[in-house]
Amino acid sequence: MINVVILGTGNVAKHLLDVFMTHDGIKVVQVYGRNQKALSVFGKFVPITSDISKIIPADIYIMAVSDDAIVEIASRLDLKEGLLVHTSGSIPMKSLPKKNRRGIFYPLQTFTVGRTVDFKEIPICIEAEDDTDYDILKQLASIISNKVVGMDSKQRKSLHLAAVMANNFTNHMYFLSNEFCEQKGVPFDLLHPLIKETAHKIQDLAPYDAQTGPARRNDKGTLKKHLAQLKNKNHKELYRLLSKSIRKTYGKKL
Amino acid sequence: MINVVILGTGNVAKHLLDVFMTHDGIKVVQVYGRNQKALSVFGKFVPITSDISKIIPADIYIMAVSDDAIVEIASRLDLKEGLLVHTSGSIPMKSLPKKNRRGIFYPLQTFTVGRTVDFKEIPICIEAEDDTDYDILKQLASIISNKVVGMDSKQRKSLHLAAVMANNFTNHMYFLSNEFCEQKGVPFDLLHPLIKETAHKIQDLAPYDAQTGPARRNDKGTLKKHLAQLKNKNHKELYRLLSKSIRKTYGKKL
Ligand SMILES: NC(=O)c1ccc[n+]([C@@H]2O[C@H](COP(=O)([O-])OP(=O)(O)OC[C@H]3O[C@@H](n4cnc5c(N)ncnc54)[C@H](OP(=O)(O)O)[C@@H]3O)[C@@H](O)[C@H]2O)c1
Ligand SMILES: NC(=O)c1ccc[n+]([C@@H]2O[C@H](COP(=O)([O-])OP(=O)(O)OC[C@H]3O[C@@H](n4cnc5c(N)ncnc54)[C@H](OP(=O)(O)O)[C@@H]3O)[C@@H](O)[C@H]2O)c1
Repeated sequence: MINVVILGTGNVAKHLLDVFMTHDGIKVVQVYGRNQKALSVFGKFVPITSDISKIIPADIYIMAVSDDAIVEIASRLDLKEGLLVHTSGSIPMKSLPKKNRRGIFYPLQTFTVGRTVDFKEIPICIEAEDDTDYDILKQLASIISNKVVGMDSKQRKSLHLAAVMANNFTNHMYFLSNEFCEQKGVPFDLLHPLIKETAHKIQDLAPYDAQTGPARRNDKGTLKKHLAQLKNKNHKELYRLLSKSIRKTYGKKL
Repeated sequence: MINVVILGTGNVAKHLLDVFMTHDGIKVVQVYGRNQKALSVFGKFVPITSDISKIIPADIYIMAVSDDAIVEIASRLDLKEGLLVHTSGSIPMKSLPKKNRRGIFYPLQTFTVGRTVDFKEIPICIEAEDDTDYDILKQLASIISNKVVGMDSKQRKSLHLAAVMANNFTNHMYFLSNEFCEQKGVPFDLLHPLIKETAHKIQDLAPYDAQTGPARRNDKGTLKKHLAQLKNKNHKELYRLLSKSIRKTYGKKL
């Protein structure tokens, strides 16, 4: 049995509690949070505290708090034993206090309140200073996920930036497309199956090979017509730049 | 029974043949193509011809040929009866010869050789000059899809541009993310579950509300660190521009 304390009552904390509770072999012995209302939800299932000095002994302390609160909260912790980890993609392990056994437990997924995700599929990127601690993290991660990956802080930082491109920027493309649809009075939800298929396609096919469209074909006629259709300055500028970037990728100048 | 002739032996033609063959009520009576090798594959299932003057009578003639070949092939067709449609998102119905009964049969999806898609989910955008012809197209489309939408050529053109943003540009984001991963030696396939979830999320949540990440939060520290991590000029420029565009969307200047 691995005893876990979760610190934080946000999105990741809630998803971790949910998945930990469905598995024998993991016991959430306590949740710490400053936000009483959010904390009370956790209190329905496990012991809670809002007093950081009252945190009880555990094997692993998982800090699922905002990136910029990690260092500050960690400095206030007074752990006698156990392994301290955080769940951030971008904060180095060495940011945690040296006096602690330190590690990382980074689930590479986007979590949304009210949406359940299949943890078995989610890569959990782990790191620890010590081999024994690495094994403990691996044991914990392997209970909830089939995809546990050892990774140092530098690699994790790169992966996090790659995730920003693949998630945040992609979502912004959806937004721009949605905005254009609204301007033209066509229903954006007609694009849902296309959007899903575009994402599923690259699970088998490299994005380089999956690329289609006028910029890929260097179809200047269509590119020109599209630019003429776009009245919004921001849409125009991004259309031009992204088409240029696609052209560059496939070796021909626009 | 609706009798159909398919013109073209490419990606869309093949997917249409496959789905039409699985449904009673539709009979593909002939496929026309200029490409003998591709045509012979169709010949295993239905009658074929590469002589445009030998096209046989049908209720609907579906031109699934390259956008820039539509007008030329249509002009060489000598149809005594039946309804002539094409499958393009961007070519107006009026581009087809006036002497024909004309219409549009545009499946809003990205088709890939070897990947089966669920046609029931795919929006089929239809248009016809004549109410009776519209009903015939509606009947055909409804056999294969649960999402049949009447739409004029102008709306379809807008939707097609929106699809370029939501598909082509999104795929390019995947490519850039993949390229960055390769440069940094981290496996891109770890991002697959994230990419899928990002696409699935907006089936329930508007892209505006689904947006996350440093640009959305106006987290200047992370934005600066990310820009420093990006060595590739193209990555840097796009990161800057897309973050700026996200900032603009959420009302704060970078
Ligand atoms: N969201 C994702 O999809 C995702 C995915 C992978 C990793 N992560 C990482 O997981 C961590 C948590 O993210 P999240 O999405 O769960 O964030 P969140 O929903 O915003 O929750 C943040 C939590 O941190 C607490 N907190 C912030 N500042 C604090 C402070 N000074 N003292 C005490 N508690 C404080 C918040 O309490 P209040 O409610 O009182 O503010 C809240 O409970 C971050 O490191 C993030 O990078 C997130
Ligand atoms: N691909 C998609 O995801 C998709 C989705 C929705 C709609 N569409 C539309 O569907 C149509 C077909 O697209 P596709 O993806 O199937 O294209 P494709 O795979 O490239 O196939 C194009 C077909 O047109 C034929 N063709 C081209 N020029 C011709 C000519 N001058 N004379 C006779 N045949 C000619 C090609 O024959 P050869 O093999 O001899 O060149 C080939 O059979 C286009 O209007 C496209 O915009 C495509």
